[in-house]
Amino acid sequence: MQTIRQWLEGVGLPQYAAAFEANDVEPDVLRALTDGDLAGRRLFADWAVAAGCRVRVDAIGNLFVHRAGLKDTFPVVLTGSHLDTQPTGGKFDGVYGVLAGLEVIEALNDAGMTTVHPIEVGVWCNEEGCRFPMAMMGSAVWSGRLPLDAAHALTDRSGRSVRQELERLGIATDAKVPRQSVKAALEVHIEQGPVLEQRAKTIGIVTGVQHMSRHEVVVLGQEAHAGPTPMDMRRDPVRVLAEVLPAIYAAARERGPDARLTVGIIETSPGSPNTVPGRLRFTIDVRHPNLRHYGTLRFEVDRLVRGALKKHGLDGDIRCLWEAPGVTFDSACVDAVRSATAALGYDSLEMVSGAGHDSCNVAAIVPTAMIFVPCAGGLSHNEAESAMPSDLTAGANVLLNAMVALASGAQQA
Amino acid sequence: MQTIRQWLEGVGLPQYAAAFEANDVEPDVLRALTDGDLAGRRLFADWAVAAGCRVRVDAIGNLFVHRAGLKDTFPVVLTGSHLDTQPTGGKFDGVYGVLAGLEVIEALNDAGMTTVHPIEVGVWCNEEGCRFPMAMMGSAVWSGRLPLDAAHALTDRSGRSVRQELERLGIATDAKVPRQSVKAALEVHIEQGPVLEQRAKTIGIVTGVQHMSRHEVVVLGQEAHAGPTPMDMRRDPVRVLAEVLPAIYAAARERGPDARLTVGIIETSPGSPNTVPGRLRFTIDVRHPNLRHYGTLRFEVDRLVRGALKKHGLDGDIRCLWEAPGVTFDSACVDAVRSATAALGYDSLEMVSGAGHDSCNVAAIVPTAMIFVPCAGGLSHNEAESAMPSDLTAGANVLLNAMVALASGAQQA
Repeated sequence: MQTIRQWLEGVGLPQYAAAFEANDVEPDVLRALTDGDLAGRRLFADWAVAAGCRVRVDAIGNLFVHRAGLKDTFPVVLTGSHLDTQPTGGKFDGVYGVLAGLEVIEALNDAGMTTVHPIEVGVWCNEEGCRFPMAMMGSAVWSGRLPLDAAHALTDRSGRSVRQELERLGIATDAKVPRQSVKAALEVHIEQGPVLEQRAKTIGIVTGVQHMSRHEVVVLGQEAHAGPTPMDMRRDPVRVLAEVLPAIYAAARERGPDARLTVGIIETSPGSPNTVPGRLRFTIDVRHPNLRHYGTLRFEVDRLVRGALKKHGLDGDIRCLWEAPGVTFDSACVDAVRSATAALGYDSLEMVSGAGHDSCNVAAIVPTAMIFVPCAGGLSHNEAESAMPSDLTAGANVLLNAMVALASGAQQA
Repeated sequence: MQTIRQWLEGVGLPQYAAAFEANDVEPDVLRALTDGDLAGRRLFADWAVAAGCRVRVDAIGNLFVHRAGLKDTFPVVLTGSHLDTQPTGGKFDGVYGVLAGLEVIEALNDAGMTTVHPIEVGVWCNEEGCRFPMAMMGSAVWSGRLPLDAAHALTDRSGRSVRQELERLGIATDAKVPRQSVKAALEVHIEQGPVLEQRAKTIGIVTGVQHMSRHEVVVLGQEAHAGPTPMDMRRDPVRVLAEVLPAIYAAARERGPDARLTVGIIETSPGSPNTVPGRLRFTIDVRHPNLRHYGTLRFEVDRLVRGALKKHGLDGDIRCLWEAPGVTFDSACVDAVRSATAALGYDSLEMVSGAGHDSCNVAAIVPTAMIFVPCAGGLSHNEAESAMPSDLTAGANVLLNAMVALASGAQQA
């Protein structure tokens, strides 16, 4: 196999070689459909071809590599993840899941094994949604959840569309690549949270993904001088925050240890120390793996904000910016992961993903599950993202064993 | 008297005439020691000379106009305020107090009256502190609270110093202008708060100025993904805010209706809806006219913030950015205002100023009091600042009558 330096020089991108080696890549280089993203996809495809795979790319830029099975028309056993990153993303989020899939193929090659069902590794296009504003875009189109035209029409801040960028990079936006028939899909990923590390577990057996939604609260008050304006003559939007914050944290606590509630943005306007703010904005992110608890918490947050607005006689609103329903993964796929983990003797934890992944879209139409491995301090979306080689190896071993098991049973296409 | 248009054209600033008339002055034109500020000072001085006054300017740019008394060596009865404004300031904050002083002089001229003590109107330099960062600068130097050299050395954001700007505008920074002997000082000002308007009072008899201080709280947490990070593994700085906000509002309420507590700035970093903030900053402005209550409230705010930091195990601090002790005005000066108000039959309210004024510095060395008039909606530091002509007239009438009373008693210099 070529080194990354050799390959980058071979494809005419020598300027990235030193940067890759120094872990000092220009932050935007690896966002979706940039030259750097394309370079990563080509490197992966070259490696897959060298490993004996066929490559195809669909009209939204999802890239699939295919390792033939004994019954090559049987539904595939699919794995994969994404190669695009956040502007300051790390080396493991997505990339690990793609390379672990390639490692499964190379391990099978090394062992001289052929599975009954073919094996595929997918690279989903634009998972992060940080350049084109639609996270998990490629898998959403693949699963039929997002129309191809709508995805093509998404634009970045400079006004360039997904269609323009795909074409600029030589990806045919009218490619007729039928969706493959899939027997089972698995994705291995760093946890992006601290639970496995803190509990000293090697493998997370992921049984589903939390229900989640994001809300924005705006409170309108009246700007006033901090000195001469008596408290009872103010229309102070911070009063609403004072009432809401302890109440929503308490509501989350009542929903048990799996509830997540995050106030990530708080902003006051005009933002002067001696002026009562005229406007307050804050966000509330609500998540829970259990639908009943999630629904109750969402309802409570809404009720508490509206109650505080009414109590203080202030105009304002809470609105839902985004909501993603939770996912329960396929029990047979989860069983395959559980059995592989047990057979390999790794300490494991059954868990629910707190973040969304391409597997949420994939699970909408085919049996799916995920495997998590620990990452240092739970840190992700950060250049300091890190993971232990032994854990990454364990995750790839579980993936290999589970895929072999799933690809062995005979099933007609 | 010339119109403002005639005068601006006469002094070579015709470009401002239409803007003044349209109430559409370039926002920065009237900040301290700009060309526009100088133009306003010159216009006032010209009007005062036309009214028979002598003009002098001290080394920090305070401008005094002197109307002779029967005993012209007796200590003066002083009034005045400032002509500089905030970048988006209104037409009344400061300007009203200067023009009301000129109106007193013209009214005495019209009546053919001469007071025993001479009368002076002062224009204090740089009251707002929004260009050169020292509010009430000119009066602070005059009262001996701020060394002249320190004031001269203050610079604006472009690096220009007070000394450079004074000299550019033709004001001698080495002028030897001894501080006049003052029998009593009065300042009339718009309230900058809503109390007089809401209680339908025409005159505020100002008995003092609140104690006040400004505090900054910084809380350091740990950035974390909103999804995968369990609540009990987070180091969420917003938890401190949730604890502190209701507690400090309650502490203010316990100190009675005169307490003022304002949280004007709240900021989270990095400020992403699905990231637990790594850092939180907020400000707390604390004011109370009663020293014991003020001290208790300050102590409580400090204790509550430190307690919340400790309870949540987060690093952070609360520090005092600025503190101004309260002022109790001179009882004889307040009596003069009270008697004049009663004699004129205006509805009045005894009150404590919530904001600082040049009179705070003046009161440090000579008997002082203030008069407030209502302003629309309590609005100030805003181009929409407004006041009723009848209220402005009432304020000037009270000033006239109180100054005449104070300037009549014989007192040797």
